[in-house]
Amino acid sequence: MAPTRQTLFAATLCSGLGLLLASHLWAWDGVVEKQTFAIDSFTTQGGETIPDVTVGWEAYGELNDARDNVILITHFFSGTSHAAGRYDPDDELAGYWNAIIGPGKPLDTDEYYIISSDTLVNLNAFDPNVTTTGPASINPDTGEPWGMDFPVVTIRDFVEVQRELLESQGIESLHAVMGASMGALQAIEWASAYPDWVERLIPVIGSGVANPWLLATLSAWAAPIRLDANWNEGNYYDGEPPTDGLKEALKLVTLNANHWQWANDTFNRDWADEDRDPAKDINARYAIEQTLDDIAAARAEVSDANHFLYLVQANQTFMAGHGDSLEAGLAAIEAPTLMLYSEKDLIFPPEGVRRTAELIEADSTDVTLETLEGNRGHLDGVLSIDQASDTLREFLQ
Amino acid sequence: MAPTRQTLFAATLCSGLGLLLASHLWAWDGVVEKQTFAIDSFTTQGGETIPDVTVGWEAYGELNDARDNVILITHFFSGTSHAAGRYDPDDELAGYWNAIIGPGKPLDTDEYYIISSDTLVNLNAFDPNVTTTGPASINPDTGEPWGMDFPVVTIRDFVEVQRELLESQGIESLHAVMGASMGALQAIEWASAYPDWVERLIPVIGSGVANPWLLATLSAWAAPIRLDANWNEGNYYDGEPPTDGLKEALKLVTLNANHWQWANDTFNRDWADEDRDPAKDINARYAIEQTLDDIAAARAEVSDANHFLYLVQANQTFMAGHGDSLEAGLAAIEAPTLMLYSEKDLIFPPEGVRRTAELIEADSTDVTLETLEGNRGHLDGVLSIDQASDTLREFLQ
Repeated sequence: MAPTRQTLFAATLCSGLGLLLASHLWAWDGVVEKQTFAIDSFTTQGGETIPDVTVGWEAYGELNDARDNVILITHFFSGTSHAAGRYDPDDELAGYWNAIIGPGKPLDTDEYYIISSDTLVNLNAFDPNVTTTGPASINPDTGEPWGMDFPVVTIRDFVEVQRELLESQGIESLHAVMGASMGALQAIEWASAYPDWVERLIPVIGSGVANPWLLATLSAWAAPIRLDANWNEGNYYDGEPPTDGLKEALKLVTLNANHWQWANDTFNRDWADEDRDPAKDINARYAIEQTLDDIAAARAEVSDANHFLYLVQANQTFMAGHGDSLEAGLAAIEAPTLMLYSEKDLIFPPEGVRRTAELIEADSTDVTLETLEGNRGHLDGVLSIDQASDTLREFLQ
Repeated sequence: MAPTRQTLFAATLCSGLGLLLASHLWAWDGVVEKQTFAIDSFTTQGGETIPDVTVGWEAYGELNDARDNVILITHFFSGTSHAAGRYDPDDELAGYWNAIIGPGKPLDTDEYYIISSDTLVNLNAFDPNVTTTGPASINPDTGEPWGMDFPVVTIRDFVEVQRELLESQGIESLHAVMGASMGALQAIEWASAYPDWVERLIPVIGSGVANPWLLATLSAWAAPIRLDANWNEGNYYDGEPPTDGLKEALKLVTLNANHWQWANDTFNRDWADEDRDPAKDINARYAIEQTLDDIAAARAEVSDANHFLYLVQANQTFMAGHGDSLEAGLAAIEAPTLMLYSEKDLIFPPEGVRRTAELIEADSTDVTLETLEGNRGHLDGVLSIDQASDTLREFLQ
């Protein structure tokens, strides 16, 4: 968290960046400290009260004295607050948007205070770097995990927790809010609900409403969890969790978040086990199946099945402004908007992105649409974000 | 089955078609008789023996004396032999390609003998109009259902059963073989394995190999069945079948076989139950979820879960020619080929269709590629086939 003082020597090593860095006395060193933020009692948009809400957060760069250099990053379905940097310098992987967040990068930590928090019902409930409140949390009224008694929470509830976090730091405006996928929904909701806060809006691979295709896709994701006998209506915290169902759910997420070009470019028809021919053994399978299972199994280890179901619901219920009219919800947005998307996106198809842009633009709000290329489709919004570096740099100025 | 004599009066009612009809003494009346074909002992490509194989079949039009006016129709994953007509004149629905099969239609029953059979391991094992042999059939050696002891069967095995059926009728050549999706795989396999039989090849919404994307998609379809505790490693015939898992599997088929445009054009964000708001009730859902569930539940009633798994395997193992090389498998095809496909197909993406066309064409075999338009994607190959009527008529002459 704390910026590290750089020597002039280190700064000048950075050739073209030297002068820029030298004008600051410090630069963020890429090491992130995860912190927590607590709310004694949180009331959901649905009118339910949740005591002892705690979420994790992290920030890159320094909050200026005017507290007006804030960029809020909102995370995707299976994501966390970890958008950039490393918790430990030896961490193999940096945060998911590390390509665009850092000293001299488009989201320049020398200039901006970039903050991100774990949502409520964060999927990665058992990741030691994640703090969230959801069905796996203890309900202080019973001393037991909430399970399916946890109130339904919405994208707007995620926004409200973020607002309280920001206000706790004396922040009352956002230079920008930017997020991918479910993060785009939060960013759009921010700009719609709090137009006075949000100066720039950057929804990436997301649109203003969960359209019927997304409702059905999310429904399919949730199904394997409810099918797993271990799920037991959400009461599994003192027994075996529904790991098999959760793995299948996570496998669908991986498959849908990618494009068929990725699968066909990356994999072949190899068998998972070279001694077991799927044409002769009904339980034999292909390497791509095994790989997708292995990815899902690794993710399942730190994920909670009930949290998954609550995230599905939060995404399904999303419509900007949460009123009766998408048009009104998007017309409420006043911030200049940059929408980044993929024409190959199978979760938030381009038609919905363009419709969202049209409705934001309808009352003359500036909207820029830009595509991300790649063979990942939806995931290019996370993995190929550096393509938009110049656009982002310019848009943020 | 039996052609009905038409009066000259009826024929002349058909204006432009009058002369054509009058030149025949009969026309197929659209009523279909389902028949069965039995093989005492069938040996799979994998070298396993299945006694007492029986499949259903039906035909439209009359076999000519030269037995050279045959068009074989091969069915899709969830399909049956019922490509045209009605089993009973009062049936609400006709066969799936009724739009192009009939008197005066592109697949003209006044000219061709059009035959179609249920595959091995047909999904609709409990449909009274379907006859198939698979895991739900009794293994004569044990007197019990085969379950997962049934041998793995492949697309080539489906072709071999069809060949025996045709030979039983004295047929040794095909004016054309045409099929959609899994039917396209069978058609391609026919033309690759028996180039001397096949005079014209018409693969619709299918390609020459199950590419990695399809392997993964089929894997996702199978997963809910194996997750259902009632599946019990395939031993459920004397207890509760894994209906919930089968329903979810069938739901994924419906979703993947359509395009997002269909979902967004057809459905809205209505709740399934107007009194239960998904933003307040974690078990509440949207109308589109309920509709997809209802469709799946209706299909599950006549479907068998193990048959579903065997069909998944048959599709996954498919590569034309079943050798080591797709190039060789497709080069073996000599029949002029008409490939109909959708640019929006999410099961057999257009890239794979075009690649198949290139490989068939590589040794100068004629290939025509034509797209089907619509908002269904893959399913436009079934539902929008009439768009290709003129092309089909010309190609078959």
